[in-house]
Amino acid sequence: LPGGAEEGLEFPNFDGKDRVLDVNERNYKKALKRYDLLCLFYHEPMPANKGLQKRFQMTELVLELTAQVLENKDIGFGMVDSQKDAKVAKKLGLEEVGSLYVFKDDRVIEFDGELSADTLVEFLLDVLEDPVEIINNAMELRAFERMEEDIRLIGYFKGEDSYYKAFQEASERFQPYIKFFATFDKSVAKHLSLKMNGINFYEPFMEEPAVLPGRPLSEMDIVEFVTQHRRATLRKLRAENMFETWEDDMDGIHIVAFAEEEDPDGYEFLEILKDVARDNTNNPELSIVWIDPDDFPLLTTYWEKTFKLDLFRPQIGVVNVTDADSVWLDMSNDEDLPTAEELEDWIEDVLSGRVNTEDDDEYADDH
Amino acid sequence: LPGGAEEGLEFPNFDGKDRVLDVNERNYKKALKRYDLLCLFYHEPMPANKGLQKRFQMTELVLELTAQVLENKDIGFGMVDSQKDAKVAKKLGLEEVGSLYVFKDDRVIEFDGELSADTLVEFLLDVLEDPVEIINNAMELRAFERMEEDIRLIGYFKGEDSYYKAFQEASERFQPYIKFFATFDKSVAKHLSLKMNGINFYEPFMEEPAVLPGRPLSEMDIVEFVTQHRRATLRKLRAENMFETWEDDMDGIHIVAFAEEEDPDGYEFLEILKDVARDNTNNPELSIVWIDPDDFPLLTTYWEKTFKLDLFRPQIGVVNVTDADSVWLDMSNDEDLPTAEELEDWIEDVLSGRVNTEDDDEYADDH
Repeated sequence: LPGGAEEGLEFPNFDGKDRVLDVNERNYKKALKRYDLLCLFYHEPMPANKGLQKRFQMTELVLELTAQVLENKDIGFGMVDSQKDAKVAKKLGLEEVGSLYVFKDDRVIEFDGELSADTLVEFLLDVLEDPVEIINNAMELRAFERMEEDIRLIGYFKGEDSYYKAFQEASERFQPYIKFFATFDKSVAKHLSLKMNGINFYEPFMEEPAVLPGRPLSEMDIVEFVTQHRRATLRKLRAENMFETWEDDMDGIHIVAFAEEEDPDGYEFLEILKDVARDNTNNPELSIVWIDPDDFPLLTTYWEKTFKLDLFRPQIGVVNVTDADSVWLDMSNDEDLPTAEELEDWIEDVLSGRVNTEDDDEYADDH
Repeated sequence: LPGGAEEGLEFPNFDGKDRVLDVNERNYKKALKRYDLLCLFYHEPMPANKGLQKRFQMTELVLELTAQVLENKDIGFGMVDSQKDAKVAKKLGLEEVGSLYVFKDDRVIEFDGELSADTLVEFLLDVLEDPVEIINNAMELRAFERMEEDIRLIGYFKGEDSYYKAFQEASERFQPYIKFFATFDKSVAKHLSLKMNGINFYEPFMEEPAVLPGRPLSEMDIVEFVTQHRRATLRKLRAENMFETWEDDMDGIHIVAFAEEEDPDGYEFLEILKDVARDNTNNPELSIVWIDPDDFPLLTTYWEKTFKLDLFRPQIGVVNVTDADSVWLDMSNDEDLPTAEELEDWIEDVLSGRVNTEDDDEYADDH
């Protein structure tokens, strides 16, 4: 039995104790003051339909389990009803029903990801960490350089001076979605071609960083630059903000690529995709969403059914996000993944509208 | 609302339809014949205690959701009661209560991992894949070389001949826990210094493979070699077989290292750990379990409480698996992770018994 004879790996079960607050006009200010973090789930009123009620209770259970697991971390949890608590919601600036809002100091962080205890606990633990990580030496620099999937910034500062503080203030606006690093070490800075008070911005999967214009930079300079550059040419779908990413479509469509990084075929396809992204990083019309099916086991068969795909193999296609209609590039010949050039031609066809989801999926058959 | 206005990301909810079979003497043979895979959960009789009953129902729900998600995959699911169905269990060779047994052709694969729908679905999708992956080119070879966390074998064959078939048969005995690859490509083989019909065995985190003695090798040669070498000097804890790993302790203790690979500190510590493992790969007494807290968000605070640790930082210690008593190396000075030599000295102290969990945790205070 799991955890039977041996100790050390006991998964928590909900102990039945209510920890999630019913937030209302009388108690919300007190709750805000009392905790380091306050997490408020903004929801529609309890539905009348039995099936939806059950789903609602599952969401409550996820919040309760999360609250239980994080009991020692000074995090408060609450529910805000979009109808009953409309005034509180307005005061707190809650807008998207189904989102979770995290209040930390005077900031609000929106969580619009998978509502599972796993994902939520990991997210909240990230929010508790320092928003800026210091890179002290060559080994830590290697760790930094390996994080190619993340949007990340690194600044070089003399120490914890006012320029560093501005960087830190900016980092808090994007935590935990965009990663901020700093170094006070000359040789680390040299390796990254960073000048004193300079900041580099790394788009996911790009080889060269963008250098933020100007030195030193104010908090607002940094915030503006990041806001303008945060939609990447190739971005990985992540549980922690998947719905936000999905809503950030381009004219109602997404170019979606499925590739298992752990699989040799998937890895190869992903490398081709990265080449294409690097060649087209300056095209603001292009943003490819990469989904690694290994990260979403519960959605794999749903996607296979919805998009009529075999996800044991890499795939790329166009998805209409309003009706989930889709067209996929024919890559049925196992030995023959497309080259970067062929992929670019196809993407051009997508961007020009020659390949689209309204042509009854004829494109795939023709090719 | 998740999946509200936009389509394409709908997490499944249990639809209430019973798909998990109550297996008994009358129906088990038919079930075995009917499906590509048959998954049987071997469990104790329904407990009288209300709390345990609830946990039991949660497990059933996990199986039902898994069955629902994999509905199109020709996988059967069933429950076998260790008391009521003792005869069936004996006939099928089910031994460990709380384990899930997967029947594929004439083999049985034991799943002794985290009983969550995520983990189970991913595991079963892995079992459905071909047990041998073919490496065709330099790019796929790079993917192979990056998988340093996995135990893996690769063989070089002329084609799908009898030697390849022996390799394939062997692979089926270890699927999906140990990864088998093959190549028919001369330049891939040359890069790996593989001779025709030769097989390399890669221990996790080691730079050089072991070459299996003899060429060509029979299925039994391969099976014996793998069985003898499968406990690695440094092994990563994985959800899919975490309880099995935990039960495979060394004289009742585990050396456990916590390190977040995504964190610069954690990455640095892990690199030191790999050095130590490489230096001591021939010591059969040494097996370090590496846990990346990011992989187990629901257990992180449980471990912090049980072991009295801060898991935002890397840690290494000795854990007694019968009572979860533990001693941890003092690494409170942030700038100063131990060197490989210091870590080796400490590990020597552990193996010789100078550091142990019975000395009232004095060691950590003394240093």
